Amino acid sequence: MINYDSFLSRAGGRMKESAIRRMGTVLAQGADIVSFAPGYPAAETFAWAEFQDIARDLLSGSDGGVLQYGATRGYRPLLETIAGLMAARGVETDIDRLLITTGSQQGLDLVARVLLDPDDVVLVELPTYTGAITAFRNVQAEMVGVPQEADGIDLAALDDVFTRLTRAGRRVRLLYVVPNFQNPTGLLVGLHKRKLLLEWVARRNLLLLEDDPYRDLYFPDSATEADVRAIRADDTEGRVIYLSSFSKTMAPGYRVAWIDAPAPLAAKLECAKQAADLCTGTFDQRVIFEACRRGILERQLPILRMHYQQKRDVMVESLRTHLGADVSWPAPRGGFFIWATLQRGIDADAMIPRAVAHGVIYVAGQAFFVNALRQAQGAPNDRSGGGSGQNIIRLSFSAPSLDRIREGVRRLASAVRDELTERRGEAAGPSGAPPLSPAVR
Amino acid sequence: MINYDSFLSRAGGRMKESAIRRMGTVLAQGADIVSFAPGYPAAETFAWAEFQDIARDLLSGSDGGVLQYGATRGYRPLLETIAGLMAARGVETDIDRLLITTGSQQGLDLVARVLLDPDDVVLVELPTYTGAITAFRNVQAEMVGVPQEADGIDLAALDDVFTRLTRAGRRVRLLYVVPNFQNPTGLLVGLHKRKLLLEWVARRNLLLLEDDPYRDLYFPDSATEADVRAIRADDTEGRVIYLSSFSKTMAPGYRVAWIDAPAPLAAKLECAKQAADLCTGTFDQRVIFEACRRGILERQLPILRMHYQQKRDVMVESLRTHLGADVSWPAPRGGFFIWATLQRGIDADAMIPRAVAHGVIYVAGQAFFVNALRQAQGAPNDRSGGGSGQNIIRLSFSAPSLDRIREGVRRLASAVRDELTERRGEAAGPSGAPPLSPAVR
Repeated sequence: MINYDSFLSRAGGRMKESAIRRMGTVLAQGADIVSFAPGYPAAETFAWAEFQDIARDLLSGSDGGVLQYGATRGYRPLLETIAGLMAARGVETDIDRLLITTGSQQGLDLVARVLLDPDDVVLVELPTYTGAITAFRNVQAEMVGVPQEADGIDLAALDDVFTRLTRAGRRVRLLYVVPNFQNPTGLLVGLHKRKLLLEWVARRNLLLLEDDPYRDLYFPDSATEADVRAIRADDTEGRVIYLSSFSKTMAPGYRVAWIDAPAPLAAKLECAKQAADLCTGTFDQRVIFEACRRGILERQLPILRMHYQQKRDVMVESLRTHLGADVSWPAPRGGFFIWATLQRGIDADAMIPRAVAHGVIYVAGQAFFVNALRQAQGAPNDRSGGGSGQNIIRLSFSAPSLDRIREGVRRLASAVRDELTERRGEAAGPSGAPPLSPAVR
Repeated sequence: MINYDSFLSRAGGRMKESAIRRMGTVLAQGADIVSFAPGYPAAETFAWAEFQDIARDLLSGSDGGVLQYGATRGYRPLLETIAGLMAARGVETDIDRLLITTGSQQGLDLVARVLLDPDDVVLVELPTYTGAITAFRNVQAEMVGVPQEADGIDLAALDDVFTRLTRAGRRVRLLYVVPNFQNPTGLLVGLHKRKLLLEWVARRNLLLLEDDPYRDLYFPDSATEADVRAIRADDTEGRVIYLSSFSKTMAPGYRVAWIDAPAPLAAKLECAKQAADLCTGTFDQRVIFEACRRGILERQLPILRMHYQQKRDVMVESLRTHLGADVSWPAPRGGFFIWATLQRGIDADAMIPRAVAHGVIYVAGQAFFVNALRQAQGAPNDRSGGGSGQNIIRLSFSAPSLDRIREGVRRLASAVRDELTERRGEAAGPSGAPPLSPAVR
């Protein structure tokens, strides 16, 4: 048997399976498991009947282009539609700045490849999205996390980290931010802080990568369109690369997302995409275009907002009922996630087999932490729940039904109880994060 | 305005638009142009009515998974179907070795990322597929071309190149081969040579990347199933990574292809794919699975073989009629391409604007040549048409109708005539390749 290790590139040698995708493998085993793990949208909300109509119309055979290779940039009418959506988000853009991607994950990957050399530094929120972590890691960039306050990244810590890194001779290239209902914390960056972040990247001559998949899914009871204003909307200088997607609002089974970037970067990203997959699926693009043109996207959004708000309500209520006052989380004002800090001493990652045995899965907080700069952690205003996420879990309430959410939280609670019972029999475990103050529950 | 050059990675700084995709941009301008440029399959052959039925059934809403995120490896029933297709190709494989990709271009990209570090060498056929060139270039690998004989790569030259490179301290990692109806030459690697290539990579401890998108599209008048036997079919040692695709047989607008690789490499390729796009479009995978399950793929193949054989006949006949004896090409026994060597002195790349003015486009041969090792070129048995492809064009006969093929060749002939008339008025241009012997016409 050949030992293939010697054939791997340095990047290949370091590639690892993501924690979230690994949970997918557990799920695929098909047992009765309530999944709070992957951030899947709710399939019952998809516009099935309308997609059936659109498919029938597109596949009549009258337009061969529907199933043909397409331009790498994307289907032109969809690009124009996206320019319109961006305008509605307060962002002036044009076709030269836009590129359609095969999901936003591809956007992250292309940006990483076009901008980052091995050992370049990307500053990220602590914690941050695992898909971004893998994309940056696969180009051998180094991520340095900066703690978050209740309104987003801690600016003093950010500048401090930057200064120390550049003094140490490191090349800092990019600040990666998920400003709306962040994956995994659900946090919403404050409007004032958005402006400060933009000023900061200009002052430090960096680019800002704004990843914005959840912005349309704010909860009407606690957020408005104004709260989710894109950082990009105030970028007059060309500092922001903006990613967004139809995966959370139409369906992720169609892989259609987009990048808005300064035109010279968009041209480079297009070259990278040519080599990555030639073009995003033509049929998928046509479906999404038709769904926009026929008003289906617009009709769906208020429905989705209410749908996910209700699921959040049920999960929050279940957590309070079954896990009590020892468990805390920042209240999500949109998106798919609850970032729950469990009792001290619980190791969320080590508890996974027990959770699976109880019929529930989640993603352990550790997966979202990049710990390259330990000294930056544990800052006084830290709302990320501590430096390593050891006793934190990310719970996605988006996909399961209301009943399954209730059932899943019941199962989670018994898994936690069993874990605590066992731990009480042992010496106290390594200390976890301090509990969050009630203000951010 | 920010100068973004300083923000680019080394790879990003070197990325360029591919010649073929650039032709797509010319086409998109919408004038009356006959396109022999991109290797598009014929949209009129797609199974439109059946795809309509499949879409209706899949989109009933009874199975939410149809539009949900999916496993990175791919949709399990489709993976099993592919294992069956591979068995029919004489290849024993299993699920642990298979990965579904977003087109074969993604397969090339993932293999490049997992195996190649900057400055690693990939040995390629001279000429070779531009998509592979861009994928290898984007990881900053160096490609070294080896001339082809009528039955494939020149083995003596191959070993000679390898020896010189390793003596010079270069790390040679991979041999890339398109054995069936190669893009761009249309050449078919001989069965004996396939075995010799396999022995050679084992002797030299390399991996072989076999890219096999056209194998099902052999022409019944001049090739059989036996002629397209995969190199992988005889690989008992685990030396071959095999790529194939549904793009040429079902439709490229669904982006579904696959990799078969030794299980440890397949696991790494899966990690790379997680970061690249999470998963291939679920809907696309379901459609392709259904098309296989319902016997549509099987029904299509003989139809496609006759379709493309007839188009080849018409193009060959038109070329003989309008361009006469001064133009030559290896007779294609399958696939989409004619690799035509024009009269000496013609610069195919420089002639493109004239061709566009006459209403026809092609891809200039230069695009397919990697010229890193000039001394290996011009070997006595060279059937690649010379070292640089200067007076060679790749003509795709796959997409246009029979009438458009005839019309396009007429236009091409007048462009060539004009070009020659103008050149006769000038000093003789730089010498092109020697004409091919009649035996390989």
